[in-house]
Amino acid sequence: MPLRHRYLPSVLALGAALAAQAAPAPRGMEQILATAPASAWRKLDPAHLLVMRLPQGRVVIELAPRFAPAHVANIEALARAHYWNGLAITRVQDDFVTQWGDPNADTAQRRALPAGLPRTLPAEYERAAAGLDFTRLPDGDVYAPEVGFVHGFPVGENPRTRHAWLLHCYGMVGVGRDNPPDTGNGAELYVVIGQAPRQLDRNIAVVGRVVQGMDLLSALPRGHGPLGFYRDAAHRTRILSMRMVNTLPATRRPRLQALRTDTPTFTALIAARRNRRNPWFVRPAGRIGVCNVPLPVRELPPPAP
Amino acid sequence: MPLRHRYLPSVLALGAALAAQAAPAPRGMEQILATAPASAWRKLDPAHLLVMRLPQGRVVIELAPRFAPAHVANIEALARAHYWNGLAITRVQDDFVTQWGDPNADTAQRRALPAGLPRTLPAEYERAAAGLDFTRLPDGDVYAPEVGFVHGFPVGENPRTRHAWLLHCYGMVGVGRDNPPDTGNGAELYVVIGQAPRQLDRNIAVVGRVVQGMDLLSALPRGHGPLGFYRDAAHRTRILSMRMVNTLPATRRPRLQALRTDTPTFTALIAARRNRRNPWFVRPAGRIGVCNVPLPVRELPPPAP
Repeated sequence: MPLRHRYLPSVLALGAALAAQAAPAPRGMEQILATAPASAWRKLDPAHLLVMRLPQGRVVIELAPRFAPAHVANIEALARAHYWNGLAITRVQDDFVTQWGDPNADTAQRRALPAGLPRTLPAEYERAAAGLDFTRLPDGDVYAPEVGFVHGFPVGENPRTRHAWLLHCYGMVGVGRDNPPDTGNGAELYVVIGQAPRQLDRNIAVVGRVVQGMDLLSALPRGHGPLGFYRDAAHRTRILSMRMVNTLPATRRPRLQALRTDTPTFTALIAARRNRRNPWFVRPAGRIGVCNVPLPVRELPPPAP
Repeated sequence: MPLRHRYLPSVLALGAALAAQAAPAPRGMEQILATAPASAWRKLDPAHLLVMRLPQGRVVIELAPRFAPAHVANIEALARAHYWNGLAITRVQDDFVTQWGDPNADTAQRRALPAGLPRTLPAEYERAAAGLDFTRLPDGDVYAPEVGFVHGFPVGENPRTRHAWLLHCYGMVGVGRDNPPDTGNGAELYVVIGQAPRQLDRNIAVVGRVVQGMDLLSALPRGHGPLGFYRDAAHRTRILSMRMVNTLPATRRPRLQALRTDTPTFTALIAARRNRRNPWFVRPAGRIGVCNVPLPVRELPPPAP
């Protein structure tokens, strides 16, 4: 199940959670999702969905063309050119990021970028807030003046400058770069695997989020070189392939749906998570951090033959 | 190095960081720590330090008797009785917790608690703020009226009720319990391995933090049963031993020091992390979340023979 359950740290709590489900009220996340109308879900667009195959299994990444259109277009072109096939996960820094790309990126042995693709792209760290359907979270935030959700992604907003940007929450994917802001191209990607490193917000192009298989990236052995790079090439995880879903045969496409964040169902979900009412909790928090709000994803069964 | 470096997600960033170290100003975390006076560090008290040995290596946990004295005393008694030796890590739930204890805790095959130790303890979820040396963090927080640090631990405070409590940041350790608040005893412990689950604050006894070997607990394969418990007992990680450091021979004791959180060095460290000044950053954040503040730990070389 790709849902990010956040339950109680107790063996016996499972029984209590099941018992709570039998009670008529209050409703928890599972009941809210189980009874959500079909219109509360959206199909993930196969034109902006990446599938990374690792020896351990499948990771699916939803891209965010609304926020980093040039980077997303380049990533999609790299995937169509099979750029990442046979490259590797090169870095796992505990409580920070897992990163992948060309282990030889900084040497003459680097894999050439496909013909016609740019080596660098303009910085896409924030965009105009106008035109975005922003669902505001009223609970406050340490780093951004306003936070909320746009089309399933956690977003910060500055009402004064009228800018918006994607947030570095757990599972969010960004583009590695060198010191000049325009030196990323999407060939080197990272995903957040610990406490949200919000200091990176508006400093780098955030391009999407992992919607399935996150645990394959978070449970990798940490690297013990500087910055969490693997000292020994043998410790790297090989990327078998990384492809756009719309280039896969229909039978091999993940059939994923995400909860819409502009719906009453999502509002109810946030309320239920802000004040947990199951019997385990002594003191509901009354507040919720933007990176603590679950963004549920479900996989539909395969179509009938 | 047990320090929690939080660097830039770029291969070339390492060179930039080293170059930045050569510049006279501004000072980053590494320079601040390298030039800190000896008085900015405190030796971790071997009377409240646990060493857990796993097949993968050593995990060291600093206990917090100021906040949960009855639970900490019980945990120390359990360690002295070798209660955990041969038990297991039973649960790893992605972006939440790793948990360990007796896999048979809920069955008749459970390991008996050592004679004289209580099966349950009173709830120790918060305490009077009076008497604590609280270093306030002025950056704000979503969940608590005030946040800061007490003796090296992240702490929330309510100035109205004059209560203080430990926060569920990455690496913090708590005590599993059933639904009644007084049902924990310390035999079942968990550690936070993802985004801070702050909704647990003041709902459970937090008893300490991992100060070394955190990556051994965070990189374990996730469990695929309900709540992240392993479905297959063979996937559990066996606990070789869990002992109090003051019961180990002197030559086998970890020689750890933690940065004092009531010092000018720590204040300078927070300032440097709030506004990163190395050449990679385009926009320093200007703020820092309490769970994003590093709590550095260093290991001294072994004494000369």
